[in-house]
Amino acid sequence: MLNLVRFEKNAQHYWGIHHQNQVFQLNVLCSTTKALLTLGRKEIKQLASQALNGHAIKTDKLLSPITQDAKVLCQGANYRQHMIDSGMNPNEKNFNMFFTKSSASITPPQGDIVKPKKVKLLDYEVELTLVLAASTQSEVNVNKDNLSEFIAGICIGNDVSARDIQIPQMQFHKGKSYRTFCPLGPYLVLLEEDEFHYLNDLNLTLSVNGEIRQQDSTRNLVFKPAETLTEFSQVVNFEAGDVLMTGTPSGCALSLPSPLLVKLVGLLPEKRKWNLFNKIQSKRTQYLQQGDLLELSIKSSDGAIDLGKQNHVIREEA
Amino acid sequence: MLNLVRFEKNAQHYWGIHHQNQVFQLNVLCSTTKALLTLGRKEIKQLASQALNGHAIKTDKLLSPITQDAKVLCQGANYRQHMIDSGMNPNEKNFNMFFTKSSASITPPQGDIVKPKKVKLLDYEVELTLVLAASTQSEVNVNKDNLSEFIAGICIGNDVSARDIQIPQMQFHKGKSYRTFCPLGPYLVLLEEDEFHYLNDLNLTLSVNGEIRQQDSTRNLVFKPAETLTEFSQVVNFEAGDVLMTGTPSGCALSLPSPLLVKLVGLLPEKRKWNLFNKIQSKRTQYLQQGDLLELSIKSSDGAIDLGKQNHVIREEA
Repeated sequence: MLNLVRFEKNAQHYWGIHHQNQVFQLNVLCSTTKALLTLGRKEIKQLASQALNGHAIKTDKLLSPITQDAKVLCQGANYRQHMIDSGMNPNEKNFNMFFTKSSASITPPQGDIVKPKKVKLLDYEVELTLVLAASTQSEVNVNKDNLSEFIAGICIGNDVSARDIQIPQMQFHKGKSYRTFCPLGPYLVLLEEDEFHYLNDLNLTLSVNGEIRQQDSTRNLVFKPAETLTEFSQVVNFEAGDVLMTGTPSGCALSLPSPLLVKLVGLLPEKRKWNLFNKIQSKRTQYLQQGDLLELSIKSSDGAIDLGKQNHVIREEA
Repeated sequence: MLNLVRFEKNAQHYWGIHHQNQVFQLNVLCSTTKALLTLGRKEIKQLASQALNGHAIKTDKLLSPITQDAKVLCQGANYRQHMIDSGMNPNEKNFNMFFTKSSASITPPQGDIVKPKKVKLLDYEVELTLVLAASTQSEVNVNKDNLSEFIAGICIGNDVSARDIQIPQMQFHKGKSYRTFCPLGPYLVLLEEDEFHYLNDLNLTLSVNGEIRQQDSTRNLVFKPAETLTEFSQVVNFEAGDVLMTGTPSGCALSLPSPLLVKLVGLLPEKRKWNLFNKIQSKRTQYLQQGDLLELSIKSSDGAIDLGKQNHVIREEA
């Protein structure tokens, strides 16, 4: 396991290793995550051990370890409790919901999340984010034995969502793609082949102003990484450095009424339905406001794998 | 106006000009549409006049004029009659529906559209497709006076859709992204500044086995290119060669019941609802089957702009 970071120093961007609370610069010129990961695990490990022989450096700012040329693939409703909350039965596994966020939404692991002027219902979603390793041109069969060929590593992702755009407009892409709506990092944790079992034992936590809102384990993921990548490969070509955000646990600000109430409200004319939706949601104090502090973490139960801490402040668009 | 084509000859890919039913090869090495368009209108026109001084050549096969590095941005429900059919009021202009198709779905303008084994309800959607000209990093204000800075040209697009995936799974990305589900071309019609008024006067036609199924004019587009690009620029970064598919007219195989019936059927349990949907739709003979012939065309009323003919045969996955 290696904790890769991308950082800024004197207005230049570099790759580094985060080790014992210090950053060591990699002696490599790669402008994209794709270019770095295409070097392969072995080469990156050699660069890392060279770096650790040198001096730690002071960075100006951590950047997203995923550059904006990457595709951001997403799953919806993929934790057992979140599916139950959404009126779905996780045991049925009816379908694996896919959508995309824009690459323009990718933002550093620390700093501001900008709440656009028109957005009233700003929400958070902590997600285990898989960083892909390989290019594909056709459907591939991903299974537990070849996971390491397709996944290079993992990072924390926050699938920030404007619920007043996403839900009434039905298609998720717009409401989840405003700039700064996809914080990734701080670490891209490069996994060794014998560490892939940890994908099923990672604890996710998200808190707002110190209050825990989301807490769950990846063992409650309904559609697991291997089957998800297999199905996604039917519709997209993967590139190294692309990411798959695997869905969020229960505990978001968005609260959906019971399935029965959803059906009854569905009988209203569209405008009245969405006015009612906005009215009910806007009373919920859990939605993010100017100055709110977000903290996200993901780590394995035994502490061996730790994806670091993501910290953001909500800033309203001027 | 220039009709750009991309073609294969002796297993190599080239750019050309389609002129008076002949193809003339451009003397340029650009592996992507982005690279070609980044040369700019003036340079491409010079290359074209050089090419026209030479001999016409015989191509082995026309390729998509859009290479697979491009993003495929899409609008949903954007023609007046199609919105009315879907139970929406086009005069309200409540919201502009955005989603994406995968780049992996891009396919040549002639040949096969593959119906995946699991797909039963295969549908067609002829769409005016805008080919973008510029890179953006932030929101831009696109208006009728600067359209030519943001749009390089236009081509025919077919937003092929697996309705039995797209509709029950709610998010459109998967059901519209299988390989061969996005035929583009044959021509990328590079527009001159004084030709942009044609965007509002193009006639789209789609026929299946010689029977016209879709026929409408872009003057019935609800959200026009300028306002759509302005809003899309809030959530994505454009690159030259990216495309925006502007929605399809009424006349698809998919038939939605009246808004009232939709509401009533919405009261059924999910499984029964979608079983009913599949049962009703599967009786419609309009859905595409093995061997069906698709023909798409788009041209201006005065015939000055002609995007060529797209022809495909439906082939069931082996």
